[in-house]
Amino acid sequence: MRVGIIGATGYGGAELLRLLNQHPHVEDIVLYSSSKEGMNIQESYPHVSEIYNQTLKKIHIDSVKSEVDTVFLATPPGVSAEWSAAIADAGCQVIDLSGDLRLEDPATYEKWYKRKSAPVSLIKNAVYGLPEWNRELIKKAKIISNPGCYPTATLLGLAPLVQKGLIDEDSIIVDAKSGTSGAGRSPSAITHYSEMNENFKIYQINTHKHVPEIEQILHRWNKDISTITFQPHLVPMVRGIMATIYVKAIKQTNEKELRELYQTAYQNECFVRIRPEGQFPATKEVYGSNYCDIGITYDERTGRITVVSVIDNVVKGASGQAIQNFNIMNGFEEGTGLNIVPMYP
Amino acid sequence: MRVGIIGATGYGGAELLRLLNQHPHVEDIVLYSSSKEGMNIQESYPHVSEIYNQTLKKIHIDSVKSEVDTVFLATPPGVSAEWSAAIADAGCQVIDLSGDLRLEDPATYEKWYKRKSAPVSLIKNAVYGLPEWNRELIKKAKIISNPGCYPTATLLGLAPLVQKGLIDEDSIIVDAKSGTSGAGRSPSAITHYSEMNENFKIYQINTHKHVPEIEQILHRWNKDISTITFQPHLVPMVRGIMATIYVKAIKQTNEKELRELYQTAYQNECFVRIRPEGQFPATKEVYGSNYCDIGITYDERTGRITVVSVIDNVVKGASGQAIQNFNIMNGFEEGTGLNIVPMYP
Amino acid sequence: MRVGIIGATGYGGAELLRLLNQHPHVEDIVLYSSSKEGMNIQESYPHVSEIYNQTLKKIHIDSVKSEVDTVFLATPPGVSAEWSAAIADAGCQVIDLSGDLRLEDPATYEKWYKRKSAPVSLIKNAVYGLPEWNRELIKKAKIISNPGCYPTATLLGLAPLVQKGLIDEDSIIVDAKSGTSGAGRSPSAITHYSEMNENFKIYQINTHKHVPEIEQILHRWNKDISTITFQPHLVPMVRGIMATIYVKAIKQTNEKELRELYQTAYQNECFVRIRPEGQFPATKEVYGSNYCDIGITYDERTGRITVVSVIDNVVKGASGQAIQNFNIMNGFEEGTGLNIVPMYP
Amino acid sequence: MRVGIIGATGYGGAELLRLLNQHPHVEDIVLYSSSKEGMNIQESYPHVSEIYNQTLKKIHIDSVKSEVDTVFLATPPGVSAEWSAAIADAGCQVIDLSGDLRLEDPATYEKWYKRKSAPVSLIKNAVYGLPEWNRELIKKAKIISNPGCYPTATLLGLAPLVQKGLIDEDSIIVDAKSGTSGAGRSPSAITHYSEMNENFKIYQINTHKHVPEIEQILHRWNKDISTITFQPHLVPMVRGIMATIYVKAIKQTNEKELRELYQTAYQNECFVRIRPEGQFPATKEVYGSNYCDIGITYDERTGRITVVSVIDNVVKGASGQAIQNFNIMNGFEEGTGLNIVPMYP
Repeated sequence: MRVGIIGATGYGGAELLRLLNQHPHVEDIVLYSSSKEGMNIQESYPHVSEIYNQTLKKIHIDSVKSEVDTVFLATPPGVSAEWSAAIADAGCQVIDLSGDLRLEDPATYEKWYKRKSAPVSLIKNAVYGLPEWNRELIKKAKIISNPGCYPTATLLGLAPLVQKGLIDEDSIIVDAKSGTSGAGRSPSAITHYSEMNENFKIYQINTHKHVPEIEQILHRWNKDISTITFQPHLVPMVRGIMATIYVKAIKQTNEKELRELYQTAYQNECFVRIRPEGQFPATKEVYGSNYCDIGITYDERTGRITVVSVIDNVVKGASGQAIQNFNIMNGFEEGTGLNIVPMYP
Repeated sequence: MRVGIIGATGYGGAELLRLLNQHPHVEDIVLYSSSKEGMNIQESYPHVSEIYNQTLKKIHIDSVKSEVDTVFLATPPGVSAEWSAAIADAGCQVIDLSGDLRLEDPATYEKWYKRKSAPVSLIKNAVYGLPEWNRELIKKAKIISNPGCYPTATLLGLAPLVQKGLIDEDSIIVDAKSGTSGAGRSPSAITHYSEMNENFKIYQINTHKHVPEIEQILHRWNKDISTITFQPHLVPMVRGIMATIYVKAIKQTNEKELRELYQTAYQNECFVRIRPEGQFPATKEVYGSNYCDIGITYDERTGRITVVSVIDNVVKGASGQAIQNFNIMNGFEEGTGLNIVPMYP
Repeated sequence: MRVGIIGATGYGGAELLRLLNQHPHVEDIVLYSSSKEGMNIQESYPHVSEIYNQTLKKIHIDSVKSEVDTVFLATPPGVSAEWSAAIADAGCQVIDLSGDLRLEDPATYEKWYKRKSAPVSLIKNAVYGLPEWNRELIKKAKIISNPGCYPTATLLGLAPLVQKGLIDEDSIIVDAKSGTSGAGRSPSAITHYSEMNENFKIYQINTHKHVPEIEQILHRWNKDISTITFQPHLVPMVRGIMATIYVKAIKQTNEKELRELYQTAYQNECFVRIRPEGQFPATKEVYGSNYCDIGITYDERTGRITVVSVIDNVVKGASGQAIQNFNIMNGFEEGTGLNIVPMYP
Repeated sequence: MRVGIIGATGYGGAELLRLLNQHPHVEDIVLYSSSKEGMNIQESYPHVSEIYNQTLKKIHIDSVKSEVDTVFLATPPGVSAEWSAAIADAGCQVIDLSGDLRLEDPATYEKWYKRKSAPVSLIKNAVYGLPEWNRELIKKAKIISNPGCYPTATLLGLAPLVQKGLIDEDSIIVDAKSGTSGAGRSPSAITHYSEMNENFKIYQINTHKHVPEIEQILHRWNKDISTITFQPHLVPMVRGIMATIYVKAIKQTNEKELRELYQTAYQNECFVRIRPEGQFPATKEVYGSNYCDIGITYDERTGRITVVSVIDNVVKGASGQAIQNFNIMNGFEEGTGLNIVPMYP
């Protein structure tokens, strides 16, 4: 396969370069840019010296068509809305890591993203790329809308409970914590080292763009769920997301029963690991890998279930999951190029 | 005043040394230890070189009685249970930073702390040292039980809502995040640098010792509250606690109304700062100071109120609050020695 | 005293706000800005809420003259060159934390700073504010040129050896490491959290602006010294500088002899602490304080002396030292407002 | 190949597990322990859940002989001295990551390591595993003594200059900085998170065990070199080493000439990357990979050459280099299983 990357100078792009380098079915990688054409990727990323020597090329649909089979878009808002339809029409697979195509209702998109939605016709053709719960549609997709980092951790953590209807549908609270890489590569006051180190921040209170994405999928799984409380925070670290999820059980349960529910739900999944009794995951335990690790327990005193779900936001929360989708779309074994032991410590 | 410190080689003790050094009414500081007598404090803490030159002395009630007026106990579990009664009987004020005297019910203590409670007679005489809500009793106290770090941030964040009965009493969820200094100075696998940096951890799920402490006070304020969900996490930073508090409003409200409630409740408090509209505090904004900064908002979609409360766990969550209590007990202006601008960045 | 600060929104300015707040002889603080007039300081720094409520004022010499006695300039290059002469002529003391007035030779300034030097007439009137070695001139100064952060740590570490002529004058190598706050508050790719955390960087190889500043002073102390090797690095932490200094002894010596030399040299200094045998300082041991801690040893195998000098770059390396100079200029006890125990941990 | 690991619960062992998992010629991995037999590796390392399920086995030479072809020892001092001879005699290849077999002179070992040396007969048979400069001997070796982390970065940085005799042999100063993983997995006061974060430390001044190892190899390359100054520091990060190397050129040179020297020296090396003009490496640019990145320059003012050499201490400084040696010993392509793009950010 020959693959193209638009947005290789961002963190999602860098991670695609890291992961695709060891993918046995990828023989050629072409880098495109809508703004930095002519630059060698090593100028932006010295860490790929002597590995990648490509120059960023301008996006021309005709060249794209002749040069690659699949295009990954690791781009800021608006780029996918502009290019995905044309790329797909040219016959290439599209895997979009941005949020452009995730929300099916343009009004919802415009409310939360504060910008114009992509055309409905394009959105309709995009399949939500959460393999564990949407694999059949992904197999036949031409355009993948890759899930957001927070939705990936949250939805994998909530799916078994929500799909089985075991919880009060009005009780979902997700307290999420992320490393700074999720904020991207553009320097800002918020992620300036001197202001972020030895600091813990809350941000975008009740307004994060991933809220409607999570609600849309939960609602698909369980019509009684309409709104959730989802609150992100910034941790002084680079990679990793933990979603601590609190829900009310509709009837008494216990840790053993819950663990069995999760183990059954994910027994055939190669990238979801359920922790044994009394163990809960830390973010470093999935560092650099495509795993989502989940711990679960029940508190008899309060009747609440706590689910702890961790991912590496740059891998399972972005580029790793994109490659997982790439594998499924092309009939490769799902873990191809992704069988990476987490880096520890 | 002449003050004694038991446990000066721990972090609570080090912080007392830092803060008491600039207290205008403290003229002499004597260091006691139950295990390290004979050691000079500089051996343990080179940062106090040429400032403190004391040797740790063995605890003898007769010496304590003649040497100091007030004793701060910044000690592991059990030390206060053993010594506080005798020290108070000797006529010294006792300010206990440990958890020994906080829970009024011995059975509750023994369930959560997994060890024997202090005698009820001692606990009965100890006043809970949360100045903002217990000032009158503190003024007359001989023994102060200084609040835990998490309870301080949580209770200051919840008090106005709970006392006014504005929330569903069964809906309280506190997702708390702490720097590692709260875990103390003893090296452990959990706080080993290589395992804690670039990592975010959840711990003591549904079992943290501060749960019954928080519940006890909330229940005093509002008899309908019996249990809460409180969940701590470890952040890769040294100092700081953020409590993100989620509660259900019993009727529709708005941010302005809530802010006014908090501003009124804390208008005479020198160490509680309510953030203006749209602003929420980060932990670094109280770094090294005795402030508790609070932000609050309401989400119309879910009917939930979010309160964000931050403190420096070693100051307002321990030694600073202890000195605040010391000031109140002795009729000093409450902020004496504590009027410190947070260190930023 | 009434003091003015130009540049309060930078880190040097924030630190002046922290330290001056507890200075007993400072009764009024006025904030000036050449670019952000009209902004309340709390908008820039929420951590000073309810402590400082000033609005930044435009710099007018007439207002400055009537409003304040001393002006601290914590400003980017060029501001002091523009304003210091006028402020001094208006009768105010000037304490300049920038590098504008440090180099006596304009050609040297222009070579290393790559910009036009301040007028020689202005530079001539500025006294280099390193109190430990320039106290008599500081007492009579109207304009202080406050030393750079690296020069402070380096010069205090080298002074006894250089002044006594105990080392090969061609052998000085200073390997310096700094926290990121030294790079200031403007976001940049270099200090973007995701690029700086879990990373250690070298920068400005053989070209750092502090090289000629260090050489100028060393040369004053010992005419045989002309050039040194000075190399800075960035550490993933916010505050702190360590200068590891390697020099060749001209004759055999030993640790005891060297320690005595340093203890004698600094015996009357309140902010320089020499470590006892076998102990060397870490940056955290001076965190938030005005101390410079020094350790020293000799290696018989190589004939080299190693000096380790640490400071908090924002305090002794900038704002704390500025206040130390302020105290000397005004006849206050030198440590006034600066007797701070380092914050640990 | 079937490989055994002794010491899998340490960081070197964990990294072998990560890297060997993707090695195409390793079909079986057996874990041995001299102290934790019977424990499942997942108890120690949850991050390998569902990847490794081995139980640590007691070391019996007969079992080792029948179970594996190669044994990696990632062990504390003394274990290799005890077991390596027997394992080699049993016909297995030995790759020792500890320092037991690195120093050829037992007296030197005993002076620096403060413990008894391994038998000379064993040390004589061990080949120093620095592939770039010892490849021919490694090909024929039965026992590899894998270099220390600091020596790897230092020797690769110095080799071209030293071998060509271009520097004053008495002028070598290596200022080295390491992440905390080099200190191993046992909790200690030095690497306790609260004491190490926001801190920069110097340690083992003039006494680090890697000094004689570096000197031994430099002396082999250039008989005029006998002693160097090598000084390590601890950086608040987990992985990465930077060696900043200062040497005096014996005659004037320039950056271009030096770069060509290095490019020529390493032109056939797959794991050494020489940076282009004006660029110097940061540790993160080799994070998780087997690269050693080198930058070099010359200062006309001082006549000194500065070499900056960075590695990931756990990979090229330990387990990655061990696998590189494993590949060479067995005739595999040298980069097999190690062609990893550094993880960034």
